[in-house]
Amino acid sequence: RTVIVNLTSCFLQGILERLDAGEIVIGDGGFVFALEKRGYVKAGPWTPEATVEHPEAVRQLHREFLRAGSNVLQTFTFYASEDKLENRGNYVAEKISCHKVNEAACDIAREVANEGDALVAGGVSQTPSYLSCKDKTEVKAAFQKQLEVFMKKNVDFLIAEYFEHVEEAVWAVEVLKESGKPVAATMCIGPEGDMHGVSPGQCAVQLVKAGASIVGVNCHFDPETSIETVRLMKEGLQAAKLKAHLMCQPLAFHTPDCGKQGFIDLPEFPFGLEPRITTRWDIQKYARKAYDLGIRFIGGCCGFEPYHIRAIAEELAPERGFLPEASEKHGSWGDNLSMHTKPWVRARARKEYWENLKPASGRPYCPCMSKPDGWGVTRGAKELMQQKEATTEQQLKELFQKKKF
Amino acid sequence: RTVIVNLTSCFLQGILERLDAGEIVIGDGGFVFALEKRGYVKAGPWTPEATVEHPEAVRQLHREFLRAGSNVLQTFTFYASEDKLENRGNYVAEKISCHKVNEAACDIAREVANEGDALVAGGVSQTPSYLSCKDKTEVKAAFQKQLEVFMKKNVDFLIAEYFEHVEEAVWAVEVLKESGKPVAATMCIGPEGDMHGVSPGQCAVQLVKAGASIVGVNCHFDPETSIETVRLMKEGLQAAKLKAHLMCQPLAFHTPDCGKQGFIDLPEFPFGLEPRITTRWDIQKYARKAYDLGIRFIGGCCGFEPYHIRAIAEELAPERGFLPEASEKHGSWGDNLSMHTKPWVRARARKEYWENLKPASGRPYCPCMSKPDGWGVTRGAKELMQQKEATTEQQLKELFQKKKF
Amino acid sequence: RTVIVNLTSCFLQGILERLDAGEIVIGDGGFVFALEKRGYVKAGPWTPEATVEHPEAVRQLHREFLRAGSNVLQTFTFYASEDKLENRGNYVAEKISCHKVNEAACDIAREVANEGDALVAGGVSQTPSYLSCKDKTEVKAAFQKQLEVFMKKNVDFLIAEYFEHVEEAVWAVEVLKESGKPVAATMCIGPEGDMHGVSPGQCAVQLVKAGASIVGVNCHFDPETSIETVRLMKEGLQAAKLKAHLMCQPLAFHTPDCGKQGFIDLPEFPFGLEPRITTRWDIQKYARKAYDLGIRFIGGCCGFEPYHIRAIAEELAPERGFLPEASEKHGSWGDNLSMHTKPWVRARARKEYWENLKPASGRPYCPCMSKPDGWGVTRGAKELMQQKEATTEQQLKELFQKKKF
Amino acid sequence: RTVIVNLTSCFLQGILERLDAGEIVIGDGGFVFALEKRGYVKAGPWTPEATVEHPEAVRQLHREFLRAGSNVLQTFTFYASEDKLENRGNYVAEKISCHKVNEAACDIAREVANEGDALVAGGVSQTPSYLSCKDKTEVKAAFQKQLEVFMKKNVDFLIAEYFEHVEEAVWAVEVLKESGKPVAATMCIGPEGDMHGVSPGQCAVQLVKAGASIVGVNCHFDPETSIETVRLMKEGLQAAKLKAHLMCQPLAFHTPDCGKQGFIDLPEFPFGLEPRITTRWDIQKYARKAYDLGIRFIGGCCGFEPYHIRAIAEELAPERGFLPEASEKHGSWGDNLSMHTKPWVRARARKEYWENLKPASGRPYCPCMSKPDGWGVTRGAKELMQQKEATTEQQLKELFQKKKF
Repeated sequence: RTVIVNLTSCFLQGILERLDAGEIVIGDGGFVFALEKRGYVKAGPWTPEATVEHPEAVRQLHREFLRAGSNVLQTFTFYASEDKLENRGNYVAEKISCHKVNEAACDIAREVANEGDALVAGGVSQTPSYLSCKDKTEVKAAFQKQLEVFMKKNVDFLIAEYFEHVEEAVWAVEVLKESGKPVAATMCIGPEGDMHGVSPGQCAVQLVKAGASIVGVNCHFDPETSIETVRLMKEGLQAAKLKAHLMCQPLAFHTPDCGKQGFIDLPEFPFGLEPRITTRWDIQKYARKAYDLGIRFIGGCCGFEPYHIRAIAEELAPERGFLPEASEKHGSWGDNLSMHTKPWVRARARKEYWENLKPASGRPYCPCMSKPDGWGVTRGAKELMQQKEATTEQQLKELFQKKKF
Repeated sequence: RTVIVNLTSCFLQGILERLDAGEIVIGDGGFVFALEKRGYVKAGPWTPEATVEHPEAVRQLHREFLRAGSNVLQTFTFYASEDKLENRGNYVAEKISCHKVNEAACDIAREVANEGDALVAGGVSQTPSYLSCKDKTEVKAAFQKQLEVFMKKNVDFLIAEYFEHVEEAVWAVEVLKESGKPVAATMCIGPEGDMHGVSPGQCAVQLVKAGASIVGVNCHFDPETSIETVRLMKEGLQAAKLKAHLMCQPLAFHTPDCGKQGFIDLPEFPFGLEPRITTRWDIQKYARKAYDLGIRFIGGCCGFEPYHIRAIAEELAPERGFLPEASEKHGSWGDNLSMHTKPWVRARARKEYWENLKPASGRPYCPCMSKPDGWGVTRGAKELMQQKEATTEQQLKELFQKKKF
Repeated sequence: RTVIVNLTSCFLQGILERLDAGEIVIGDGGFVFALEKRGYVKAGPWTPEATVEHPEAVRQLHREFLRAGSNVLQTFTFYASEDKLENRGNYVAEKISCHKVNEAACDIAREVANEGDALVAGGVSQTPSYLSCKDKTEVKAAFQKQLEVFMKKNVDFLIAEYFEHVEEAVWAVEVLKESGKPVAATMCIGPEGDMHGVSPGQCAVQLVKAGASIVGVNCHFDPETSIETVRLMKEGLQAAKLKAHLMCQPLAFHTPDCGKQGFIDLPEFPFGLEPRITTRWDIQKYARKAYDLGIRFIGGCCGFEPYHIRAIAEELAPERGFLPEASEKHGSWGDNLSMHTKPWVRARARKEYWENLKPASGRPYCPCMSKPDGWGVTRGAKELMQQKEATTEQQLKELFQKKKF
Repeated sequence: RTVIVNLTSCFLQGILERLDAGEIVIGDGGFVFALEKRGYVKAGPWTPEATVEHPEAVRQLHREFLRAGSNVLQTFTFYASEDKLENRGNYVAEKISCHKVNEAACDIAREVANEGDALVAGGVSQTPSYLSCKDKTEVKAAFQKQLEVFMKKNVDFLIAEYFEHVEEAVWAVEVLKESGKPVAATMCIGPEGDMHGVSPGQCAVQLVKAGASIVGVNCHFDPETSIETVRLMKEGLQAAKLKAHLMCQPLAFHTPDCGKQGFIDLPEFPFGLEPRITTRWDIQKYARKAYDLGIRFIGGCCGFEPYHIRAIAEELAPERGFLPEASEKHGSWGDNLSMHTKPWVRARARKEYWENLKPASGRPYCPCMSKPDGWGVTRGAKELMQQKEATTEQQLKELFQKKKF
């Protein structure tokens, strides 16, 4: 295979030059969910060995996001820290090393980025080590290992994403910052803050102080909730007189009923989320609201498919002055329906129509909201209690710990 | 480019040998909807010029369906008749001839089919000519042109699909039958029958008499409604003492609120259907019901993604004795959640859990069902009437015909 | 107590004179449901001993219906046949004889009718005897007993209502007809017909042939479904060249998800029906549709409260030329909101507002429709099967018959 | 008419003796909504002239609440201040003076209270004067006038209820306190506090300091929200080291989608609230939660019908040691269904069944939640803006002020 060089660095401006100049930067969508549906990622471990096993599938998805308007291609290195991949060893063929997965991810992203106007971002995310030991040296070493690949492969900038604890996110930023490359950092939190009770405002302050140039949220909550969380981060930064660019990469699922821990606790996670999938019009609203709040790095996370990214690019086309390539196959606000043979379908070729549509679920036997699971409320738990195997919450925790489930 | 030969014909049994032997044959999913979301097909015209413009995207989708368990790869030739492509000339670069689109579709399907255990089916669908002129000779000539490509490219069998009028479907079967290859025929109708009022039972009888070996339905209605329609077809054939294999390729959208003309009349078509998307568990129920009715060619149409096809293959794995390749990334009934760190997520690694889940929409401001649009009830129409531009239905029709919309 | 004379017969025209003259006759609402909520009737037995135990409560409800516009006050004699009252003997103090209950019902109805422009109708309904023995003589004797009271008390006409089997309804009509008074007959069926499979059209024909001057439906289904059933009755009569007045007294609950046996099989019956209660605007639509179909005896059954009856009277006020007394406390289409201090509440004082409102349930954790219970699908049944007490439907029926529940 | 004496004062303990002894005191339900449905109160003005016009209807409703378990009968004097009744002069026959209405209300309540174990509470509520002038003297004079009637008629205690501004509520308590009778005070607020932004905790503190012995909330929000508000009041009192009894009289409508101003801003208010009506089981949950929080004066407001009050009494029967009279017509948890002829209906005669039922709305075309109306979002407003009569919010306010609506 031929060497893949970084054409971006020759011709394109970097992430900070773009954001500093006031440009809107469009992120990409969620790889693990999209590739799970395509058959290449296993829900549960959510590890990215597909970069080695099926590079053509990863390449195609990058290409679709690029075509949809993404200015940043994230290396598909989610959960690719050594401890995570080893932890899930039974899922991944032994011969695929952590190193290989990360290297392949960089090569594929760069190859596609070279086909268009995109930057490559190397990504790290929270580690099992943090939860099990909280040993700063060990956790930082894991990030360091991934960073070495990113440096060797010369990514354009770095993203520390999907952190539930700001303490670990700060460690990640500290490691990545050493590289001299710009660092973005996003937490997977909602308005209630991180799992130790640190508020979004305080999280943002700590991340910026640690060296992040861009801060925000990703995953776990829907666009509306995520924008609210970024608003709180913005207020925190303003109060602390700190400056940073804002970033938002939410779910493409409606989650008005989430608790503090986000969509993982919803009973539908991860195999029954379909009725919650956002339409392209929902995403246009999100893009506009994000822009109005001053967020300039706007992308998506789990559930975001290429057409959702295109919706961001189309909504903000007036501000940016151009449409993405994939819009050649998409009329704005449904205007490609204007030639339909049925007049009532033609009547849908209007902005007002789609903007005001309240789409029906087609599921009259299902509810609109769910109660999140958790200690004491999970359905499995309830059944165990009904079956009298556990009569107190303590026994329940013990049963759970004995791997009863 | 090297010549692509038909490896299938050397090693595999044909469609009828399989069905006659009692095998379950799994179809593939919907190309126009999946590729629209990926950025390669325009909603409205729904034409398949991507086979020439972006063959890698078409190839990847075929590969995903193959990996998910499809035994039949349909050439991506939907709406690829000359009259349709010309009709939509403004959308398709002039240099892409109908001929090229059909040829490329055959080559790509064969290339991927050769990677696994799949047959290639050449597909024709209803034509604009039928609606505008109903001239038998002209309509048949359109099918004949497509058939020539299929014969040159040596597809394994033929499918006449997506017909609203049985008369045109019969003409298609008559043309395809001349080739000597097995012919399958599916109508896009529900239990109320075709647009001229011919019942599903009568449709089936006419198609079998015209030469179809396999009959059934595709598109326009959800799995439950489609199975009901095939049940009526089966009864019609039994009453007429005719024999044929049964086939079902429904939508992957819940449409309990459709009228006779199916999901196109739903206000959400085509850009607001997300809340209606079926889960993998919905599809497992469908596969079981289809099997129990005696349907042995089981696939999907619009909305079916690779993971939906995998769900059919997993549900029927006990009968077939094997799992599809993509199941290496999918535990049966969520069992890959059994290692999750949260006990309440681990508690979801059970068949009973997913079978009984009533997934919430996350949309408490939206209804569960919609009233289908149509003459006099379309929202666009209502607004025109309110704005006093039309006060009678006749004026409304005239306004619509003047291309007011 | 003073003797209560029939003032009606001195001054008012009878039911047939009114209907023959083309008048709209407004019925009353549902006594057992309204009085259950007020604390005087027991759900389950649904017997009318309140006429003796708490006459003031029965009198007040009659008065409210009269004030709301009812032209007919039905004696509160539902399920007041001797076999029914005895059957429920444990509920009713022994000293209250069937005779007393029926007599008191007549007296109270007449007393209130004399306060306004209303007729008194004596009502009989289906008997337990029919279901247990189907002996024509015995069943007819039960009706005869009630009729004797009605004759003694000189009611204005008779209604045989709430019959699931047309055979028993015909027997009732035959008995009542002997009296020489006009007879109305309503079945509690939907479009699928009676419990023996007799179609609504055939039911209507048999009832008219037996002597009923007015036929229709009551109870068990919502207004929309009930109107559809009366439409089928009308068609049946037309086909048979028979003439009769049409009558409709549906539920004031939305029941789009009912099976053949109506709302009793819904899981919410009878203590969880609240979210299904119709608004006054739903009832105005019903009144208009009923009128448009040619129904001229328009009332309600279970769930109909006085304000629902007023809604019928207000909707048809243009045709009738007057409003009911209770409209002094009700502005048409919410116009009494026009003085509200909040402008957005004032903005609700318009017909278009209430006509188009889609009222929210305030219950995002609940579904919109239910699956009716019945053999094999009842929740109790499912639990028994899960608990392995029954593994086949046969065992289940046996368990049920052993009064396990 | 004979003089009605206060039998209560001879035999029963007063409200404070009961609460101090730890008794549970059950309030009554909502008169204006119940009597509106029965045809005696006009929505909009909501004034109680029915005490003079139709005393039998008011008496019957009191009787039903008494029978259902109410220990307190509130005089039907809601909005019976002179300024309010004059303000709505066009609705009320001129000859009915404010004085007469209040006197009749006291007489009727006492008459029914004498039939059982109930206290009579004289009630005052917020005045139009407060909103228009905020003149303390004028507002207090209005309360003083009502108090004179209550003193003459010797009610057992006083309730100042339905106040949106704690300032006015404090004035009311100050006036009522002068009488020497115990005073209860409830605000119609939610967790966000009063209309001037005073928190529930602060409201409670101010009311107790002004002399209220019992504080809490009534109306405007559903049981769940109201309990949450009382919880905040309790915390406020604890923090201020003040002691008072707690009271709760919420709506019997589900209102999870309310804004700060409660159900009046919901688009369904007041004529489309039916789908939100709580079941008896919802109310049993409410009664239990209220009791668990330490609330001992538990009743209801708008929407509470006699069967809702009975549900409180039945839920707390174990603590109180007795059932209300109306329970003779109501089996606990549906046990009166145990003799039904259908086994699946018999299967509903269980606590678990009704406790876990998620009742369906029967309205698949309606949403579950609404956006509250208000400046800029009201539907009427939106239409005005669409019709170009107003293009800015300012113009809109002006149009509204010009009584356009």
